[in-house]
Parts: sequence; C-alpha cells; structure tokens
Amino acid sequence: MLVKRNLHDQPLPPLAMEGTQGVSMRILVGRSDGAPNFALRQFSVAAGGHTPHHSHNYEHEVVVIGGAGTVTYGEERFPLTEGDVLLVQPNVMHQFQADRGSDLKFLCLVPVSFDCGKTTPGS
Amino acid sequence: MLVKRNLHDQPLPPLAMEGTQGVSMRILVGRSDGAPNFALRQFSVAAGGHTPHHSHNYEHEVVVIGGAGTVTYGEERFPLTEGDVLLVQPNVMHQFQADRGSDLKFLCLVPVSFDCGKTTPGS
Repeated sequence: MLVKRNLHDQPLPPLAMEGTQGVSMRILVGRSDGAPNFALRQFSVAAGGHTPHHSHNYEHEVVVIGGAGTVTYGEERFPLTEGDVLLVQPNVMHQFQADRGSDLKFLCLVPVSFDCGKTTPGS
Repeated sequence: MLVKRNLHDQPLPPLAMEGTQGVSMRILVGRSDGAPNFALRQFSVAAGGHTPHHSHNYEHEVVVIGGAGTVTYGEERFPLTEGDVLLVQPNVMHQFQADRGSDLKFLCLVPVSFDCGKTTPGS
C-alpha cells in the first residue's frame, strides 16, 4: 500500500521539546511507515518562535516551504525564504528562527538511525 | 560552510535516461556536497511526459511541489497534486506521469547508497 499524505491535510501538533518556542511538527514519512533510511518531517515555527540551538551527530536536509526566517549555522546566520534548501552537517550548532515578522514553514529530513543503530529522535 | 540553494535559482537540465520523456532534474543536496545518508533531487516533468516505469532496491520519498499528475505504484494509480508526500518502497514498480494537462514538479529523495555500499544513481 502506498504511503500518501498531503502537507495541507491536517494541522501540525505542537512540539514539546526543550529550547523550542512556537514550534509545531509532524512526521510525514518515518520509521512507523517502514521508511528504510530517512524520515521526512514537517515543521512550522510561529512568528517570534524558534527551534533549539543545538547539534547532534546526524545531518538535516531542509526545504523551506513557506514564510521567512533565519538559520544560525555555526557562527553564521543566513536569511531563509521559500524554496531554500540546506544541508546541515552533523555536529554543527544550528537553530531556525521565525524572526522576520512571519511564520517559518519547512521540511526537515533526518536519517532514521545514527551511530551504528541508535534511533534518531523524531524519525 | 553551509550548503544553501534555492528551488527557483536556476533552470533544471534535461535528464537523459532511458524510459523518460520530458524530464528535467538536478541534485540539490547530494554525495558531492558530503551528504552522509540521503540525496535530495528536484524534478520537473513537462505536460505529457513521464519518468521511467521501473523499480530498484532502494526507496524514494517524494514531495509534490507544483503542477499535477499521476503516480503508478505497483498495480495502482493515484492522482498527484501540490503538497502530496509519498513513500515509494524498494522493489515496487513505479512511474510519475504529467498526464493531467500541466507539468509535474516534485522533490525525490534517495539514499546515497544501497545493497551494502553500492552508489545510488543520481545521488
């Protein structure tokens, strides 16, 4: 059976995670669907909100699908707008902020496991 | 250095691959960027065109970002519209067709390797 969902088919539930503010998230394709290698998650950060400023030993690939904001990557900051695509490498401190007067909507992919078999959170 | 591109920053080059018609593709994040586990590719299928009807021993995760079309998945066919998200499991015959009067634009992710270290084509 084909796993088929739509970005617009339901509201995103709030994400309770230390260091976040105004973040909603759902897993669109993940481990529970039998995704073999990577998981696709949908995020929305409300205007003024942010994801954690953190790092971890696995990468993100990110696609901005709406709104605007800023990504902190290491010591640098870059503006984000619709259509931007990023590779956040493992172990680089990063944070997504909706600091430009609107919300920030993006897709964020992670591997389903890291460090030889540990389960990636939110996959 | 942050790998940062935009879906709209340049035209997609035509894809020369047996079984395709009217397909353009580029790798947005891939092996040459140091992507550790999976690659993100951008596709556009011109109205009337299609990707190959094929299968392979690795999955796709797909996000429809514009236009409309149809996906064949095994013996079934499903309409596609903006915002649709799919998991195409390994070894299932599949094809994307722009058969509804417009082009079909989507993102398609693959693992960068499969079968214990073989390089995935187009990653």
